[in-house]
Amino acid sequence: MTAQLRGVVPPVLTPFTAEGEIDLASLERLVARLLDGGVDGIFALGSSSETAFLDDARRAAALEAVVRFADGRVPVLAGVIDTQLERVLAHARVAERVGAAGIVATAPFYAITGPAEVEAHFRGLAAGTDLPVWAYDIPVCTHYKLPADLLVRLGQEGVLTGVKDSSGDDVGFRRLAMLNRAAGEPLTLLTGHEVVVDGAYLAGAHGSVPGLGNVDPAGYVRMDRAARAGDWEAVRAEQDRLAALFEIVFVPAGRVGPAAGIGAFKTALRHLGVIETNVMAPPMVPLGDDDAARIAELCSAAGLS
Amino acid sequence: MTAQLRGVVPPVLTPFTAEGEIDLASLERLVARLLDGGVDGIFALGSSSETAFLDDARRAAALEAVVRFADGRVPVLAGVIDTQLERVLAHARVAERVGAAGIVATAPFYAITGPAEVEAHFRGLAAGTDLPVWAYDIPVCTHYKLPADLLVRLGQEGVLTGVKDSSGDDVGFRRLAMLNRAAGEPLTLLTGHEVVVDGAYLAGAHGSVPGLGNVDPAGYVRMDRAARAGDWEAVRAEQDRLAALFEIVFVPAGRVGPAAGIGAFKTALRHLGVIETNVMAPPMVPLGDDDAARIAELCSAAGLS
Amino acid sequence: MTAQLRGVVPPVLTPFTAEGEIDLASLERLVARLLDGGVDGIFALGSSSETAFLDDARRAAALEAVVRFADGRVPVLAGVIDTQLERVLAHARVAERVGAAGIVATAPFYAITGPAEVEAHFRGLAAGTDLPVWAYDIPVCTHYKLPADLLVRLGQEGVLTGVKDSSGDDVGFRRLAMLNRAAGEPLTLLTGHEVVVDGAYLAGAHGSVPGLGNVDPAGYVRMDRAARAGDWEAVRAEQDRLAALFEIVFVPAGRVGPAAGIGAFKTALRHLGVIETNVMAPPMVPLGDDDAARIAELCSAAGLS
Amino acid sequence: MTAQLRGVVPPVLTPFTAEGEIDLASLERLVARLLDGGVDGIFALGSSSETAFLDDARRAAALEAVVRFADGRVPVLAGVIDTQLERVLAHARVAERVGAAGIVATAPFYAITGPAEVEAHFRGLAAGTDLPVWAYDIPVCTHYKLPADLLVRLGQEGVLTGVKDSSGDDVGFRRLAMLNRAAGEPLTLLTGHEVVVDGAYLAGAHGSVPGLGNVDPAGYVRMDRAARAGDWEAVRAEQDRLAALFEIVFVPAGRVGPAAGIGAFKTALRHLGVIETNVMAPPMVPLGDDDAARIAELCSAAGLS
Repeated sequence: MTAQLRGVVPPVLTPFTAEGEIDLASLERLVARLLDGGVDGIFALGSSSETAFLDDARRAAALEAVVRFADGRVPVLAGVIDTQLERVLAHARVAERVGAAGIVATAPFYAITGPAEVEAHFRGLAAGTDLPVWAYDIPVCTHYKLPADLLVRLGQEGVLTGVKDSSGDDVGFRRLAMLNRAAGEPLTLLTGHEVVVDGAYLAGAHGSVPGLGNVDPAGYVRMDRAARAGDWEAVRAEQDRLAALFEIVFVPAGRVGPAAGIGAFKTALRHLGVIETNVMAPPMVPLGDDDAARIAELCSAAGLS
Repeated sequence: MTAQLRGVVPPVLTPFTAEGEIDLASLERLVARLLDGGVDGIFALGSSSETAFLDDARRAAALEAVVRFADGRVPVLAGVIDTQLERVLAHARVAERVGAAGIVATAPFYAITGPAEVEAHFRGLAAGTDLPVWAYDIPVCTHYKLPADLLVRLGQEGVLTGVKDSSGDDVGFRRLAMLNRAAGEPLTLLTGHEVVVDGAYLAGAHGSVPGLGNVDPAGYVRMDRAARAGDWEAVRAEQDRLAALFEIVFVPAGRVGPAAGIGAFKTALRHLGVIETNVMAPPMVPLGDDDAARIAELCSAAGLS
Repeated sequence: MTAQLRGVVPPVLTPFTAEGEIDLASLERLVARLLDGGVDGIFALGSSSETAFLDDARRAAALEAVVRFADGRVPVLAGVIDTQLERVLAHARVAERVGAAGIVATAPFYAITGPAEVEAHFRGLAAGTDLPVWAYDIPVCTHYKLPADLLVRLGQEGVLTGVKDSSGDDVGFRRLAMLNRAAGEPLTLLTGHEVVVDGAYLAGAHGSVPGLGNVDPAGYVRMDRAARAGDWEAVRAEQDRLAALFEIVFVPAGRVGPAAGIGAFKTALRHLGVIETNVMAPPMVPLGDDDAARIAELCSAAGLS
Repeated sequence: MTAQLRGVVPPVLTPFTAEGEIDLASLERLVARLLDGGVDGIFALGSSSETAFLDDARRAAALEAVVRFADGRVPVLAGVIDTQLERVLAHARVAERVGAAGIVATAPFYAITGPAEVEAHFRGLAAGTDLPVWAYDIPVCTHYKLPADLLVRLGQEGVLTGVKDSSGDDVGFRRLAMLNRAAGEPLTLLTGHEVVVDGAYLAGAHGSVPGLGNVDPAGYVRMDRAARAGDWEAVRAEQDRLAALFEIVFVPAGRVGPAAGIGAFKTALRHLGVIETNVMAPPMVPLGDDDAARIAELCSAAGLS
């Protein structure tokens, strides 16, 4: 099913109640908003889902709920972010059980590894599950950039189905796309860089996994359809509007990492009435009222209400 | 003159004789090739010119020659890469004297500085020359990323005329383009990332400074004209061809920095009969025959001969 | 019990059988060797234990075995390396159950956090266990350097008992030692840098956690006792000998991270007859015969047999 | 002369007048203070001299003055910090002319190079001057760590005389010292890490190049003499006092690089009546009154007045 997956696959956030529990009602509304926006798939348990701050039980609960709320209308990819193979395979078991359409796996992390270890890791993962395996290239978290030639080779051998590129290296992405094309396009390539998706489409991306797509899924879908239609001025105009909206992540001063980006997305979605709170997983502290006011302005400026 | 400069502005290489002297005859042919290719300007004494390996006399000689060979047909921007203000101003003096159309300056380097020092540096530079000042954002060499808001602010105040972005940070470039547009577009934005120029055009680039443009200037000009005409499929096709040609820089194994990239460009230009040798400034050792053979193949595959 | 812990606390390796199972017989011999060498404590489930490659069941099994083999002769600290609080607390539960004397916790990793989140993490951990909490400063794995002032402040408040410093930042360690002393020495400071333990003692370290101490525990104990006695020439001589022995980790060419360091330690211990194999946790591949021969030579040169 | 140089070789600051000119009267007093403190040599035009912010004329003037003020009582090493060989050799010419006892050279910088280029650079330098050549390992500025085996090899061949290690990598320093000793000690090793000089002595340093030695030269000399005498408790006590004094560099909030460290040293020396102003080379802005007050307190606490 995911071999054909392309288009917009937002990494769905994990809403929390004021008490810090997963807020299933908010999550259901958020998934509904994605579906209403026309997305082509949903990526659950990505970095934007605060997965690294969820224990295994909450990971499973969040994934099961997303699959249930998606209700077969679009495929759900399941992040299996973890330090080493057995843990990743345990997450894959959950993904299989709840009906995910594929898994998205990073290189091993914490321990420092090289290309030989990373290759063995992906091979071990593919050998241990029947689900399609997507490589998640996110060196800002794993501190390892997946080499383009390794990815394409593993694609040719059927080990990998696709790549979710969050590397911030668009030169590297162009090269990946080019090598992939030369190899007969074994890999589906999705970009995670929400403000340069237009360029990624020109470079050969098959779609995007935009965190900002939680806030404005319809915008990313319009951009995707325009790209498919070759209407590049429409693509660019939509991307410019979304890039302006993305400024919400620069509103919080002095925050780093998820506390800035996810905090801003959640605050926007609370403003838009989609989720109940802007609470994040501990130890992150939610954004305050001043930030929220500025984020609301930027949402309005981007035409969201 | 440079306020209107946009389009393709290749960073011209510095050819050397077998004895390691600047090879003016080769340089003249190279400049002629750029002009024949239809470029809109030439950037002399950039990083691709091996400027960091040239002493002041050779810098001046190379710049003077490029201006002379360009003969007023296109403006020549002069790199003024150096550690601190007085040195940079001394280079600016040379640029003024030989008739350059503007200067291109990095942040101070070697010493570690912050935004306050960088701002003061650019202000001091603008105060010390009548030439338009372009900021050269190249953190891989200076280890400092120029902040987008600082650049736009200095543009609004007339301190800066434009930016040559070699940061590798295309998300940052989109943001720079967006802030620049919101400020009334005080800055001209040129990208140095030769394999994602198409996306940069969508993002708002006014042109490119492609090192690979030494090897195939006409290709970059065709891409630029297609972008101006809104023919994005042509843009993309040209970029894909050029990205495949760019693989020449990955041919040399075990080389880092200029020894790989500039070595490959020079070897291609020698193969194409434009320059005499592929000698680089010491301490760099030129590429050998095996690399040259593979580079010749890639040139042919890209339609160059 | 651990408030008084100081001296040599090696991070015990995890031996594996040829089939990749934890080799309890080898582990028992290894622990016995540490005890015979006179160590003051044992650190189980550290980075040297390949903890990041062990799933939870194997972590628990390894820890339980080390505590059992130590048999109350020295305290055992338990590493609780994991991405987020609940997971870390689950490891703490195991540590409590099997009788560990304290836990050693890193900053959260994978997700990017700042000082506020790290402080909250350690506070949450201390609130959730009665065991003494040691901070594990290992930015090469977590990509976050624990700030000295935060550590000392948490020590003063009783949140932290000590620090295991594997930061590679000896200037920072001096500053930590100085701030700690000025605060009444709330923290016990152990260094993980096996080749500069002598300098760390001068700087104020209370002991060491040397990976190489698996191979030569008696040497580190001799150095510690000499330091306590103020016999610095003996300290230096012992450190020089151990630094020469540490060259075993540079023997494997083209290996990164644990594949080099732990691979060398295991190969040395196999040569010394302490453990059965030099197998590492997948995806790491053990060192080969050439490396083993050179490592054996270096062991002999250091007087080990 | 420098083959025998060891002990304390402070990197002398460059005092400025309020108008930003080199303040020769202050520089004379500063050199006198170093000589009175008993230093074994003086390192002029190091990073602490703000060399990267001085144009060539001011570099020459500062160096000539330091040699003149030193008056043959101790050897003066001359920094020749620059991007490439001819420039470095031009600085070497000045050093020869004014009577420096050796030159101290970094790897090439700005351009990215590898070990082959760095080796060729040092060989070219040694071939071009009769002065002894010291390697200056300062990756925080050059972004290249000089490999220990390369340094020792160049020492054995007579290309290099010594190393000024400002790498912050004390594990690497131990390894360098060990390899150097195994090779018959061709290199003189000086550490630039002013707060862990004690450990460096144990590791095998022959002396130090402490920036803080401008403020308290006598302290570093006492530490050196104690180390020579094997009185390690005295070494440690002196180092602890100096490490506490070093806290002056952490006083300025929100400053980076030289604006913090050199700004603090100059402010302390102004407080001590040695130099006239705490002015730094533009674009750096001097520290203000609040910082100066706190720095004065720390000087008093360290027994300086």
